[in-house]
Amino acid sequence: MTRYVFQFEEGNAPDRQLLGGKGAGLAEMSRIGLPVPPGFTITTQACNHYQELKRLPEGLMDEVWTHLALLEEKVGRRLGDSKRPLLVSVRSGAPISMPGMMDTVLNLGLNPITTEGVASLTHNRRFALDSYRRFIQMFGNVVLHMEHAQFEQILEELKQSRGAVDDTALAEPDLEELIQHYQNLVRQTVGQPFPDDPRVQLEMAIEAVFGSWMNPRAVVYRRLHKISERLGTAVNVQSMVFGNMSEQSATGVLFTRNPNTGEAGMYGEYLIQAQGEDVVAGIRTPNPIDQMARELPETYAQLSEVCRLLEHHYRDMQDIEFTVEEQKLYVLQTRSGKRTASAAVKIAVDLAKAGTISQAEAIRRQDPEQVQRLLYRQIDPQAQVDVLAVGLPASPGAATGRVVFSADEAEQRGAAGESVILVRPETTPDDIHGIVAAQGVLTSRGGMTSHAAIVARGMGKPAVTGCESLKISLSDETFTVGNEVVAKDTWVTIDGASGRVIRGSVPTIDPQLSAEFTELLQWADSIRRLGVHANADTPDDAAKARELGANGIGLCRTEHMFMGQERLPVVQAMILAESVEQRQAALDQLLPMQQSDFYGILRAMDGLPVTIRLLDPPLHEFLPDIGDSEEALAQAQVRGDVADIERLQVLLRRTRTLFEFNPMLGFRGVRLGIVYPEIYAMQTRAIFQAQAALLKEGLHPQVEVMIPLVGTAEELARMKMLTADVNAQVAAEQGVELPYAIGTMIEVPRAALLAGAIAEHAEFFSFGTNDLTQTTFGYSRDDAESKFLPTYLAEKILPDNPFMVLDRPGVGRLIEWGIKEGRAVRPDLHVGICGEHGGEPSSIAFCHEMGLDYVSCSPFRVPVARLAAAQAALE
Amino acid sequence: MTRYVFQFEEGNAPDRQLLGGKGAGLAEMSRIGLPVPPGFTITTQACNHYQELKRLPEGLMDEVWTHLALLEEKVGRRLGDSKRPLLVSVRSGAPISMPGMMDTVLNLGLNPITTEGVASLTHNRRFALDSYRRFIQMFGNVVLHMEHAQFEQILEELKQSRGAVDDTALAEPDLEELIQHYQNLVRQTVGQPFPDDPRVQLEMAIEAVFGSWMNPRAVVYRRLHKISERLGTAVNVQSMVFGNMSEQSATGVLFTRNPNTGEAGMYGEYLIQAQGEDVVAGIRTPNPIDQMARELPETYAQLSEVCRLLEHHYRDMQDIEFTVEEQKLYVLQTRSGKRTASAAVKIAVDLAKAGTISQAEAIRRQDPEQVQRLLYRQIDPQAQVDVLAVGLPASPGAATGRVVFSADEAEQRGAAGESVILVRPETTPDDIHGIVAAQGVLTSRGGMTSHAAIVARGMGKPAVTGCESLKISLSDETFTVGNEVVAKDTWVTIDGASGRVIRGSVPTIDPQLSAEFTELLQWADSIRRLGVHANADTPDDAAKARELGANGIGLCRTEHMFMGQERLPVVQAMILAESVEQRQAALDQLLPMQQSDFYGILRAMDGLPVTIRLLDPPLHEFLPDIGDSEEALAQAQVRGDVADIERLQVLLRRTRTLFEFNPMLGFRGVRLGIVYPEIYAMQTRAIFQAQAALLKEGLHPQVEVMIPLVGTAEELARMKMLTADVNAQVAAEQGVELPYAIGTMIEVPRAALLAGAIAEHAEFFSFGTNDLTQTTFGYSRDDAESKFLPTYLAEKILPDNPFMVLDRPGVGRLIEWGIKEGRAVRPDLHVGICGEHGGEPSSIAFCHEMGLDYVSCSPFRVPVARLAAAQAALE
Repeated sequence: MTRYVFQFEEGNAPDRQLLGGKGAGLAEMSRIGLPVPPGFTITTQACNHYQELKRLPEGLMDEVWTHLALLEEKVGRRLGDSKRPLLVSVRSGAPISMPGMMDTVLNLGLNPITTEGVASLTHNRRFALDSYRRFIQMFGNVVLHMEHAQFEQILEELKQSRGAVDDTALAEPDLEELIQHYQNLVRQTVGQPFPDDPRVQLEMAIEAVFGSWMNPRAVVYRRLHKISERLGTAVNVQSMVFGNMSEQSATGVLFTRNPNTGEAGMYGEYLIQAQGEDVVAGIRTPNPIDQMARELPETYAQLSEVCRLLEHHYRDMQDIEFTVEEQKLYVLQTRSGKRTASAAVKIAVDLAKAGTISQAEAIRRQDPEQVQRLLYRQIDPQAQVDVLAVGLPASPGAATGRVVFSADEAEQRGAAGESVILVRPETTPDDIHGIVAAQGVLTSRGGMTSHAAIVARGMGKPAVTGCESLKISLSDETFTVGNEVVAKDTWVTIDGASGRVIRGSVPTIDPQLSAEFTELLQWADSIRRLGVHANADTPDDAAKARELGANGIGLCRTEHMFMGQERLPVVQAMILAESVEQRQAALDQLLPMQQSDFYGILRAMDGLPVTIRLLDPPLHEFLPDIGDSEEALAQAQVRGDVADIERLQVLLRRTRTLFEFNPMLGFRGVRLGIVYPEIYAMQTRAIFQAQAALLKEGLHPQVEVMIPLVGTAEELARMKMLTADVNAQVAAEQGVELPYAIGTMIEVPRAALLAGAIAEHAEFFSFGTNDLTQTTFGYSRDDAESKFLPTYLAEKILPDNPFMVLDRPGVGRLIEWGIKEGRAVRPDLHVGICGEHGGEPSSIAFCHEMGLDYVSCSPFRVPVARLAAAQAALE
Repeated sequence: MTRYVFQFEEGNAPDRQLLGGKGAGLAEMSRIGLPVPPGFTITTQACNHYQELKRLPEGLMDEVWTHLALLEEKVGRRLGDSKRPLLVSVRSGAPISMPGMMDTVLNLGLNPITTEGVASLTHNRRFALDSYRRFIQMFGNVVLHMEHAQFEQILEELKQSRGAVDDTALAEPDLEELIQHYQNLVRQTVGQPFPDDPRVQLEMAIEAVFGSWMNPRAVVYRRLHKISERLGTAVNVQSMVFGNMSEQSATGVLFTRNPNTGEAGMYGEYLIQAQGEDVVAGIRTPNPIDQMARELPETYAQLSEVCRLLEHHYRDMQDIEFTVEEQKLYVLQTRSGKRTASAAVKIAVDLAKAGTISQAEAIRRQDPEQVQRLLYRQIDPQAQVDVLAVGLPASPGAATGRVVFSADEAEQRGAAGESVILVRPETTPDDIHGIVAAQGVLTSRGGMTSHAAIVARGMGKPAVTGCESLKISLSDETFTVGNEVVAKDTWVTIDGASGRVIRGSVPTIDPQLSAEFTELLQWADSIRRLGVHANADTPDDAAKARELGANGIGLCRTEHMFMGQERLPVVQAMILAESVEQRQAALDQLLPMQQSDFYGILRAMDGLPVTIRLLDPPLHEFLPDIGDSEEALAQAQVRGDVADIERLQVLLRRTRTLFEFNPMLGFRGVRLGIVYPEIYAMQTRAIFQAQAALLKEGLHPQVEVMIPLVGTAEELARMKMLTADVNAQVAAEQGVELPYAIGTMIEVPRAALLAGAIAEHAEFFSFGTNDLTQTTFGYSRDDAESKFLPTYLAEKILPDNPFMVLDRPGVGRLIEWGIKEGRAVRPDLHVGICGEHGGEPSSIAFCHEMGLDYVSCSPFRVPVARLAAAQAALE
């Protein structure tokens, strides 16, 4: 016959599936000799049988009575005894924690007779009576399915008739009367007297807890959290202990370490002569746990020892509930304590240094996304905030500044040292200079991967996007939220980690890069196999990346360099050139600018590889809007400004020629290099001239030239030849050898499919998973995230946003194929990834599995990537 | 020792590599007993040795003399003989034909003495002298590398001094004087007298022909045509025959059948008493070959027999050069004759019926692209045409009509029975009704796969696109080419096969669907394994497809059905709906319209499968331009038309919401079905209601529902469920079972990569290779073809336009993978292709190799596809 009931102290390896989380914990604590109030657990199997039979299974209660007898013997009290009555709690406990979802009955065993027994045992009749009336109320609600409010109403009426404000003002006779009223209410409502027999109470309570497994809120909770209905809940029957029995009794909660900072030492509070609920109810102010060393020194010592034992046993910081009954300590519950990100790091490092856990375990325990928060400014959790609106948490960190509505104004005022927040319906590459100068960005449109979001994340700058409740009027220079109008120059604070937009300037706290965190990352570095490079376009970003531990620059985009205010006109002149000569003249002007860009980055990363991607975006991105130009032309015509008319006509003609239906799939990347080789020639010349200058200074620039958007081997072959030609020219001019590597992005499916042929010409591959995801799915990121992707995620058509979490079955398969084919042709092919996925932990794990050499991510993701790469290596 | 020289009649299987094409042909003809002037061939190997040694190889001339002696014996004349001098031609002949690239010397053997011999032999001293002076000129040019112009100048001076206009006006003394001048010129220029010794002449000529293998134009030609330098050329030394020897001599060219129509019977012309060059020179008008039956009846009979022999031997219509010397017929050359598309079909079918070739061979010999021309109206080749401009040959066929500049006007006037040509800078889906009504389409922008081109090809309607020399002014309703202004209503003719735009109305000729062509296609049907379906959206197109032999409709697009003038407002109402109820109301209006569409197509294809693709394009394609609406709103505001303002504001808001950055990768296909299931529900209901109506009429509609743009199995699973629900509802309502198949397009790489999972839910796959090519390459077709693809093709970065010829290494690999994975899960998975590649021969061959079940192409490509599918099966 199946056995349904187990004493806490039975068995060696408690079975969480069978005993539930709480039951297993109680068994585990009992087993290692901690002072746990004795009791027993009725298994989840009994629950499952109950659900099938709709009644308690045969023989269950016989087993319960047998175990109850053992329990009574152990504690020296008996259920229903008039002198030494045993009271028990009856609690649910599923294999997976479902806090608050199911029912609990405390103080079971009370009736008019045992109440008097408790009164004499605790020397506190008022407490006994109050416990009894609470028990009737709880049992009535949980077991007899009566309305909580019915009991409360009676209580209120009595308090009013007595002129009492608090429950505590009720005297013993009042409580006796209240109990009488409660018993009448029960009899009237359920048509039966309240059960006085504690055994009847127990059986009814067990059945009620099993029944609560299927209550509506538990069912919804399980559906939300994908918890199987088949798990069932266990029932724990445990003897009650009384923290309110005397001055030598107490109750409290504590963490074995400070959960905010991770500092060693108990952190918590307690109340003398109180029950657990008094701590929660807030009627009396609890004392800090340190004070117990004076009030109950022996128990305090015992508690310290228990904490040590528990931490050692569970190998982690614990969150403990305890009760002291007549100086005897009982641990009621223990579990891993929730903690802040910085505490998580410190605790793990401390435990590892103490030898409690390994360094590997310390790394495994970190949640990389939580760790990420340590790297951004945060809003002071203590601050009072006036939240105006909530948008998407597009780029974490907190920023405060005055509202401005144009990138130009942001740039001017930012340059003048002002703190501004750039507010736009959405941003475009034309706004980059404003984003650079602003403290943060706020948009009313666009998703987590809109232009604003990507650029801001790339810069490590806070951004809130898609804040649709903002109605922005660019002409009035205001935005409106509901009835509130926020004008230009108003101070606001944005929290890119939560998406909050807050009125006023709110105090923020600095990122925490503690000694422990630094140490943990060093451990990670010694464990990980994947290199971690950064995507950085400026010397500042490169320096930041290096500071955060990057092993190189995996993606240095050159297009942002074209966007500077003094450069854009030259870039536009190059695009508008009507002959190769005109274009060359503009390129000649750009050459020294680009050279200084590369000089700066190569210098910042001296000795580490810098992968420079040649120009990628469609040229029309550098030209003004057609609409804007048309308007300017109309105005010039009104003015009769002949020169301007001519200029604008040329501009418009060229802009229209460059117009594209699907720019994402258009005339960009290597396609530019093939049609306008002079552009790539200028860029490679700038790179090699910078390299030559650094070499002459005795430095060690490591140059990698990366060709974007290659789809055929021939494209790469041509650009490789062009690069080699330029390299040879510059080397000859400068009289110095200029070693470099050349490779390509794999970012269209065809490149992955033809990776073998492409690898003939490539020394390295870098999977551009942003574009590869777009082309593999046929999703335009900007369009998908504002149109159908929300529905797809809500309806679980896709498990994750594939622009955030790498799509293993589709994109991943192409990556796998690309690596296999590429390495078959060139076994030493260096392979990395430089899409946004390079900073996402589960995608990093995939990269590790696939045998990539490195991931590359934004500088502020580098520590997370180092950690995630180590975690992947530990899998 | 290597043997370098072979008599024509030696050997059984002439070796083209060794003897060259001409030499092998002469040997072949000699071998089968045709009357070929005797001679011998010096091998390509000798040429190669000459190239290495830079001189004629050891022993070569000894061999030549031996063979010359044999030749002299055979023809009874001797080189240099004063009475019966042998004259020979010395011609190059490479293994691969390089027409006109290398040198030839005729009449070799002439000197003052042999010239008199020829004079007495031919009874024509003037001819002998003229031959001699021509020989000096040719030898001087080819062998002695003198300028042709030098000789011509002397000739001109002489003619002027004699007052002669034509060469023929020069008398014998004049020619004697000319010869003297020529010999002086040679002596002065090369410092040596002109060689009189015929053996010296021969050795020098052979060396010159070998030398010409490396002349610059031959080198360039080989590079262009990728012909190896290692092939070398052979030299053919052949006795000259004289068609001008007497009235019983003649020369001529003929085809063994009529090359224009394919009719049996000799087709050609000849001249009595003439040499070959006289026919070409056009000094005398040749006679039709029939006349020879009267003038030289015996020779004519001999010639007929030779034609029969040649056709039988070469198993094809031949193009022959012949000479008659004193009634004796000599064949100088034979080769497969060039022919028109219709002649090619007739000849092959006739030869097959005569048992000369097999039916399979008749099919193999057709060039599908040439055959395609038979299916379109053509400009009468006899017509005089005034070409205004030439654009891209976007959709073949000729069309004549009056120029109109708006789709609305095209529709009105077309409906009134007028012939119009719609001229637009480019077309959009808004212009469909105009394209339908016009005879043809002409655009100044857009490539071979622009909207105009694709739509026109789909409709089998002539189109010329990207005609950039046209400057269109929509406001003036004119277009300008150079200085010519063409106003509205002007008659023009466009030729979509050549891209010509012609002024005026030009006579056109009907497509030729001859009995032979029909028969050939029936043979093809019995050979091919691939099914040939058609892409058709209307009952008329479906009927046309069926008439042209389609086995079903492989792609019935439903979006064009939404574009009709009476429907678009309802479609727009559906899109602008602000609630599900509003949308449902609009859909309820569309339902009967769609039902009648499907009813018509299913009826036209009764008994054959019809694959209906649910709505695919982004919804904004059905809305007006943002710019147009803004202007309309501005005007409404000026008018103060409140209702219109409100309507336009709603329209604008929704249009802006639906705006996409990359519509190709946007909110379309199944993504619409997931977010707005009510749209697909309406469409499937319309399909099943139409099916029910037809079943009740006793017909046999074969319904296949196709879900577009699927990228995840879950998308298809949802839509399959929706379809099954609607099917069950309609079946219950109509009281009839409604069998159908459901499947999906594979048109994004992820679908091919996850084909196994998708096949769990799909009964068929149809590879949408247009979109699959776009996403695999990361090319937007519209942008690529107007921007970088021309450069890619010109520079051979891609071998073909991948939108026309399926890209085997990339897209093909995905198709291969998709089929393999799909059939692994569902072995009976039906697989087709419905991109434009479905009508392209080499892509059809790939589909055959991959084991696809069918290809689907536009109705007018169906015959080509039937032929190409048979050719693939014969490979």
